[in-house]
Amino acid sequence: MADKGGNIARDIYAVILAGGSGTRFWPLSRETCPKQMLQIAGEDTLIRQTIKRINGYIPEKNMLIVTTEDKAQDLRFHIGSLGPSAKEVQFLSEPVGRNTAPAIGLAAIHLNQISPSSIMVVMPSDHAISDKERFLNGLELAIRGAREDYLATFGIKPTHPETGYGYIKANESESVGVEGLFKVVRFVEKPDLQTAKTYLANGSYYWNSGIFVWKTSKILSEIERHLPTLYKTLKEIESLFFKPDKLNNPKTQLLNNLYCCIEPISIDYGIMERSEDVLMVPATFRWSDLGSWTALDEIQEKDQHGNILLGNTIDIGSQDSIVFAGERVLATIGLRDMVVADTPDATLIAPKEKIQEVRQVVDILKKNGREEHLIHRTVERPWGSYTVLEKGLGYKIKRISLKPGARLSLQRHRCRSEHWVVVSGTAKVTREHEVYLVHTNESTFIPVNGKHRLENPGSDVLQIIEVQNGEYVEEDDIERIVDDYGRSS
Amino acid sequence: MADKGGNIARDIYAVILAGGSGTRFWPLSRETCPKQMLQIAGEDTLIRQTIKRINGYIPEKNMLIVTTEDKAQDLRFHIGSLGPSAKEVQFLSEPVGRNTAPAIGLAAIHLNQISPSSIMVVMPSDHAISDKERFLNGLELAIRGAREDYLATFGIKPTHPETGYGYIKANESESVGVEGLFKVVRFVEKPDLQTAKTYLANGSYYWNSGIFVWKTSKILSEIERHLPTLYKTLKEIESLFFKPDKLNNPKTQLLNNLYCCIEPISIDYGIMERSEDVLMVPATFRWSDLGSWTALDEIQEKDQHGNILLGNTIDIGSQDSIVFAGERVLATIGLRDMVVADTPDATLIAPKEKIQEVRQVVDILKKNGREEHLIHRTVERPWGSYTVLEKGLGYKIKRISLKPGARLSLQRHRCRSEHWVVVSGTAKVTREHEVYLVHTNESTFIPVNGKHRLENPGSDVLQIIEVQNGEYVEEDDIERIVDDYGRSS
Repeated sequence: MADKGGNIARDIYAVILAGGSGTRFWPLSRETCPKQMLQIAGEDTLIRQTIKRINGYIPEKNMLIVTTEDKAQDLRFHIGSLGPSAKEVQFLSEPVGRNTAPAIGLAAIHLNQISPSSIMVVMPSDHAISDKERFLNGLELAIRGAREDYLATFGIKPTHPETGYGYIKANESESVGVEGLFKVVRFVEKPDLQTAKTYLANGSYYWNSGIFVWKTSKILSEIERHLPTLYKTLKEIESLFFKPDKLNNPKTQLLNNLYCCIEPISIDYGIMERSEDVLMVPATFRWSDLGSWTALDEIQEKDQHGNILLGNTIDIGSQDSIVFAGERVLATIGLRDMVVADTPDATLIAPKEKIQEVRQVVDILKKNGREEHLIHRTVERPWGSYTVLEKGLGYKIKRISLKPGARLSLQRHRCRSEHWVVVSGTAKVTREHEVYLVHTNESTFIPVNGKHRLENPGSDVLQIIEVQNGEYVEEDDIERIVDDYGRSS
Repeated sequence: MADKGGNIARDIYAVILAGGSGTRFWPLSRETCPKQMLQIAGEDTLIRQTIKRINGYIPEKNMLIVTTEDKAQDLRFHIGSLGPSAKEVQFLSEPVGRNTAPAIGLAAIHLNQISPSSIMVVMPSDHAISDKERFLNGLELAIRGAREDYLATFGIKPTHPETGYGYIKANESESVGVEGLFKVVRFVEKPDLQTAKTYLANGSYYWNSGIFVWKTSKILSEIERHLPTLYKTLKEIESLFFKPDKLNNPKTQLLNNLYCCIEPISIDYGIMERSEDVLMVPATFRWSDLGSWTALDEIQEKDQHGNILLGNTIDIGSQDSIVFAGERVLATIGLRDMVVADTPDATLIAPKEKIQEVRQVVDILKKNGREEHLIHRTVERPWGSYTVLEKGLGYKIKRISLKPGARLSLQRHRCRSEHWVVVSGTAKVTREHEVYLVHTNESTFIPVNGKHRLENPGSDVLQIIEVQNGEYVEEDDIERIVDDYGRSS
């Protein structure tokens, strides 16, 4: 398929929007683990599925993930685990999120430098799509429309009168020269239930999927026409930072200032609703924007009582409920239209109709200075992961898992010493000028301020239990002297 | 008060029934932590409150806790933490539970040996009672009735048409010679709602509290009359095991055989409904038998929306719900008449009207060979407590807290070694023939099969993190060589 239509792959770039934080999936989502990094629908996390969906059709080096600076490193590690070629995926960091139109505009001026004749496939990183082949078939149609200087978008045939999505009214009788592509009459905002019902009955209204295909040059000229202020700022950024790698330099204060002054606006509202050159591909795949826990109802298989029960659940007689458990036992009895979501340190329980109020829970956690909205007990790292088992006065206990061949940075802590007990595998330990092996059921001690490094020289996963001792046992007490992942102090 | 009525204390014995398992408070209750050991209402656990309620009125040496053999040791440790005089509390172990009539009968033949003229105050160990002084005032009245050879019982003035309790119909016009004591017309089983409403309107019906006072000789003669088969078995037990301490000997197979053949029957059904000599004291305290999570509604203070929210909860707009959280965050939104109960390893969520079905959850856990109905992550011990932080393949991690001056047994494990890291306090460690101190932030290692002992010689709590290594890391791999608590192998 990559060869259909002549050199499809070479001038096509995927722009994957990954700036969202996904508060609405708390407690599973956290600031450091936003929705796109969750595995809530399908066999992998949403952003990894987004990459896999176009993998083989668009080469990794033509994939551009647009996100904010604070998320870029974690996302890079997260993508990296897909395999060696994932390292070729490019990142473009916004100093701060300004909704989709500026993010897409920034990607456009970046691509304009690399390939002025390129075609952009803009995709959210956190949507669920059921079928790769159908998606790629639609994408091919959309690309044909884009080559004709249209803005092409994917419309989803509604299955119910949804009030949470915007709609696209298509004109299915006006031909645009390519079979299966329709002219768009207009974009409409989220309707009320009555209106949504008439849209559903009408048949020519589609859900707006937020997946767009266009020439880089076309979207820039549309931005120039419909969002002239944004265009002016983008051109200023282009002239000052025309070298693409500068965009990732966090010290570029001028870029920060320019970008922060941009008015947030969505591409739908800023361009799609105003442009006259919009085409629609009716999608043949199942799709959800996963706007909240209840969106799982649209894409997950249900049991005979309408429940979605995942993880370690025991249920007696619930109906139409979503229970998302982990390793802990979640026992539910006779629930009706409820959502229960469990993680090791926090649980959410709400009726489906009130699930939107989870944002208020996150606000309260923030206000109270807690951590349950920020981080998970288990944190993924490029070398493996660690899990905080307990934190008490003057100590913290972690289980650390190292992938075969991986190593942590050469580091040092000002305020804590560390006891390491190897519970599986063999550790190679650097402590000051010594280097030695610690086998399963052996332990070692790292004194305060001692330069040290933990490494897994074996071919199995290394697991150690780390007991930290000290008056201050927070993550920011770390000086990285040498790091394989570019995190040196 | 102990001197009122002449030598009240000397011939009065408290018989505290503590054989219940309390499945209905899962996940808070477990087989090794039954309802009487829970702090779910009031400032201490239910059984400790039961003891404190009569403390100073009945001496500890006159308190007799009747329970089953499998619970006796844990209860003894649990009571022991009340202070030195709690060690005088006596225990009587049934080989197996046979409902209240046999348990009370066993206590009666035991007391008949010690003090044939004694008065028994029979109390459940797992009920909530609001007011000690009012309880003792009522008790004094009941004892006066008992001295007149009556079976005296406490009746609770109904506040609503409860269908979960048995009722007592009192004759408030017939004097029995003691002011405030009424003749009982009859005991009635749990009524349906309509009948309960007529009882409530009638005014002479009371809830049956299950608290009874009588002469030991009187209850034995009533058992002889109304439950002759039970009486025969009790007399056989008395003649074979007349020395009270033999009753606690688990090797007495003959006792086992005799006791196991007893037909289970409650004292209410077996005696109280049949006897003609029953008096009632109308209680002036608030009371609940805490039959399920929803019983908390009767005794706990509620917020303005009718909720009982305990522990680390964040609630948005719930009404009439019970949320029992621990240290983990429990976020609830818009619940109506729900119960949520959380522990570190299991959570229960159910509408109030279905809360009885929690028994089915426990059955499923049993059937699946899980542990969440058996033990808690944190286990109380006479020397302090331990918490299982994690169990994985070939290892287990515990936090162990030792009270000042306490020590574990001198012990040895066949299948595991142990790493100990001291995170607060100082440990005195015996390892084979060495004895040495391990300070905060130091560690030591106990090899497989190494005889060892952990002791807290200091005046602060000692906390250590123990990492166990071995193919088998279960609790039963322990050989106790010397033990301060009578648990040597």
